[in-house]
Amino acid sequence: MREYYLKKADENLPELVKTNIYPDIEQVNMNNGDVLTLDLRNHYVGYFSFKMWYVERYIDAPVRIRIRFCETKRELEDDYNDYKGFLCASWLQEDVVNIDFPGVYKFPRRYAARYIKITVEAAPKQFSLSDFLFESVSSADMDKLKPAKINDDELKSIDRIAVNTLRSCMQRVFEDGPKRDRRLWIGDLRLEALANYFTFNNSEIVKRCLYLFAASERNDKGVIVSHLYENPLFVSGDWYLSDYSLLYVCSLCDYYNYTNDEETFRDLFDVARSAVDSAVKCKDPLGLVDGDAFIDWCPGLYKKTAYQGVYLYTLDIWIQTLEKLQYKEAEYYKKLLEEERDTSRELLFNKDKLVFINEIDNYQYSVHSAAWMVLGGVVSDDPAKTILLNAIASEISVKPKTPYMHHYVIEALIKLGLVEIAKDYIRNVWGGMVKEGADTFYEIYVHDDPDFSPYGDRKINSMCHAWSCTPTYFIRKYGLDN
Amino acid sequence: MREYYLKKADENLPELVKTNIYPDIEQVNMNNGDVLTLDLRNHYVGYFSFKMWYVERYIDAPVRIRIRFCETKRELEDDYNDYKGFLCASWLQEDVVNIDFPGVYKFPRRYAARYIKITVEAAPKQFSLSDFLFESVSSADMDKLKPAKINDDELKSIDRIAVNTLRSCMQRVFEDGPKRDRRLWIGDLRLEALANYFTFNNSEIVKRCLYLFAASERNDKGVIVSHLYENPLFVSGDWYLSDYSLLYVCSLCDYYNYTNDEETFRDLFDVARSAVDSAVKCKDPLGLVDGDAFIDWCPGLYKKTAYQGVYLYTLDIWIQTLEKLQYKEAEYYKKLLEEERDTSRELLFNKDKLVFINEIDNYQYSVHSAAWMVLGGVVSDDPAKTILLNAIASEISVKPKTPYMHHYVIEALIKLGLVEIAKDYIRNVWGGMVKEGADTFYEIYVHDDPDFSPYGDRKINSMCHAWSCTPTYFIRKYGLDN
Repeated sequence: MREYYLKKADENLPELVKTNIYPDIEQVNMNNGDVLTLDLRNHYVGYFSFKMWYVERYIDAPVRIRIRFCETKRELEDDYNDYKGFLCASWLQEDVVNIDFPGVYKFPRRYAARYIKITVEAAPKQFSLSDFLFESVSSADMDKLKPAKINDDELKSIDRIAVNTLRSCMQRVFEDGPKRDRRLWIGDLRLEALANYFTFNNSEIVKRCLYLFAASERNDKGVIVSHLYENPLFVSGDWYLSDYSLLYVCSLCDYYNYTNDEETFRDLFDVARSAVDSAVKCKDPLGLVDGDAFIDWCPGLYKKTAYQGVYLYTLDIWIQTLEKLQYKEAEYYKKLLEEERDTSRELLFNKDKLVFINEIDNYQYSVHSAAWMVLGGVVSDDPAKTILLNAIASEISVKPKTPYMHHYVIEALIKLGLVEIAKDYIRNVWGGMVKEGADTFYEIYVHDDPDFSPYGDRKINSMCHAWSCTPTYFIRKYGLDN
Repeated sequence: MREYYLKKADENLPELVKTNIYPDIEQVNMNNGDVLTLDLRNHYVGYFSFKMWYVERYIDAPVRIRIRFCETKRELEDDYNDYKGFLCASWLQEDVVNIDFPGVYKFPRRYAARYIKITVEAAPKQFSLSDFLFESVSSADMDKLKPAKINDDELKSIDRIAVNTLRSCMQRVFEDGPKRDRRLWIGDLRLEALANYFTFNNSEIVKRCLYLFAASERNDKGVIVSHLYENPLFVSGDWYLSDYSLLYVCSLCDYYNYTNDEETFRDLFDVARSAVDSAVKCKDPLGLVDGDAFIDWCPGLYKKTAYQGVYLYTLDIWIQTLEKLQYKEAEYYKKLLEEERDTSRELLFNKDKLVFINEIDNYQYSVHSAAWMVLGGVVSDDPAKTILLNAIASEISVKPKTPYMHHYVIEALIKLGLVEIAKDYIRNVWGGMVKEGADTFYEIYVHDDPDFSPYGDRKINSMCHAWSCTPTYFIRKYGLDN
């Protein structure tokens, strides 16, 4: 089967659209030690080249250039020598090259950048740089972007930047971040795919990603690997996240719902079912699902309740799709879902206080638990509204750190009909990045802690991250502007 | 004419012979911070590649490698951060690359090296390096190397290393040094061509170089530019050396003498004549040739006398060739040479002391003056022997610093029939490098001052330099072994 899945994935390799981007400067003379900053005026992913030429006398030694590609302005001044993070420093987008001869020099690597900083580290004499060209690549075709009439300026900006984020991450697959990781994660895939249906509507790339995960590895519990690499090699990642495994199922159901491509759904049904069943089987002694979930990049977060919510949420979506396609298995899962919701209510919910603070999650009070319990259908209507809004408003609750988790909070708000509050929530989170002048939405955004990083150093954070692109989905799907 | 000369140069572009060189190590696992040194077992010029692969887990971030190419072992430990020279630091053969994916990585630049030092600057986890390959390039074809029967072990080594030096420098043109400069200088061209006639005998490359200089620029005095670039652009250098301009004439005459290619000589006759005539015309008030000569990289050297010698030496060779080819102009130059020799004797020679210590050269006593006056035919026979040998033996005379100048000292010794002394001289200079374990002969070799550099820092010295390759010429031409 693996070969078959990979063949299907290959057949759906999207074409990369190339666009020539010319920075704000056309030509400049440079001397040893000079620094030049170019502005692409927007965030792009692709390949950079320039022409190096001599000015008066022939450039008779290699020219050594340090070049830094920055997603945001702040990175221009960062000192990479004091990098303290625990992700590999090689993700910092800086290279030193020795250019032997005058002529056009094309940097061999792909970069993600709005700004380009060029420092002359060694040059025998004055030389010129010109013909700056950034060849942007993306499988998102701007000509195919669905038009959206959005009157509100802030929402319009948020939509534009979300689309731009998605565009930069849409490559041969949905990448999580084009600066760092550059791979396919299930969590990002799902959110990118949702945004994609309402913008570029490139169903090919979603299909490709679904087949790639079908071809990937499972752990001994049947959990689908959380990420994979596909270029130049197809390799499964080495991290298994139980919530991501379930979100694969959601991604497949979404795909069918938005494309009506029944053939693909049926093709991948077994893969999805085994992911669901692996969660069903993997329970703790109390009867709650047991596994290593991601949920959010949030230090100290207890994830049990949230993961239980992901499980119920997935069952719900799974059942709806099975019913639509008249799978006889629907009944079994339907019955299961009701039982699991009862168990959840019984074990995780404090009815008197209307909160999901529970012994199992070490009495931790978090927005994560509340949102996922709402999405899992454990609570509904007015009590659910109170639970979620209180958790969001609380001064002591643990709050989401990533736009990824914020997405599910918004989804929960909308599920409860709290559309205006969802809109404000979007303005609060994504609007904050807009005010900072973002061209793309960040992997991590904590308004009052701009240096927060789950990796030990803000400099390694990805400033264009797939999982942050979903405001365009909410704005367009729910007409949030109206 | 320039287009015609360039066309002829292009027609004689030599083919580069490629040879795969495999270092002493086949495969090694590397971790962050690890250092690996490869040994090519000989000095080569060319392109390096290896295969980077993951060991247990996929290499999920770029691997940052610092790579240094060393012509000699000593360079492996040099600290390039404290480089103080005044030539551009970009000549130091070190690059830092970020390798994004597992696979074969080919470094894009050409290097000159025996040793390769690889330092892992950033890697997310263990990886392997294997399939090390150095693709050596040279227009010297080892299969065409003339055999030479040399019994003496030291001379045999010297010959082998001289041939190796020539081979590394023989590229699209005779380069001066494949590590640094990598361009065509007249001074190097002449010596490389002489060595070439007795070894690879590739007359194509000599012809190409002669035509390239014919196409190059002259200064307002008619001096041929001392060096040029030909790849990717044909560009004349910006330094005019009056002795080099004359050595172009010698190179053309040598070429005819060794190849009998009369057509090329006649084609370039006007170029050579105008170089000779520009020297003839450019005299100081006393009647000695006036110009900026190179002679040697020797701090404080007074060059007047030596340059006068180069002039006379060139006239001599020029006349001999014109006579062979029955040019009527021979008579004029013959008469001129006699007059110039008389002037030289009168102004520069101290008959009583048998030395070329003269007011004009600030009373400086140098081997350079003595050797070039001998080669210029100002003195001969026993007095000449005394003059030259005394200068060499003197404790106070200025001595040559470069094998380039040593070449002309040996030529002077041989001219005077002092073949055994010439042989010892070769053993002293080049034998010293052999004892140091040289694979190629250095640009600069001062036995008692291993850190001497004309460029302010030994680290920038070229350790494989064309002008140091001529022992093979002397050994083979004069049968020094016998």
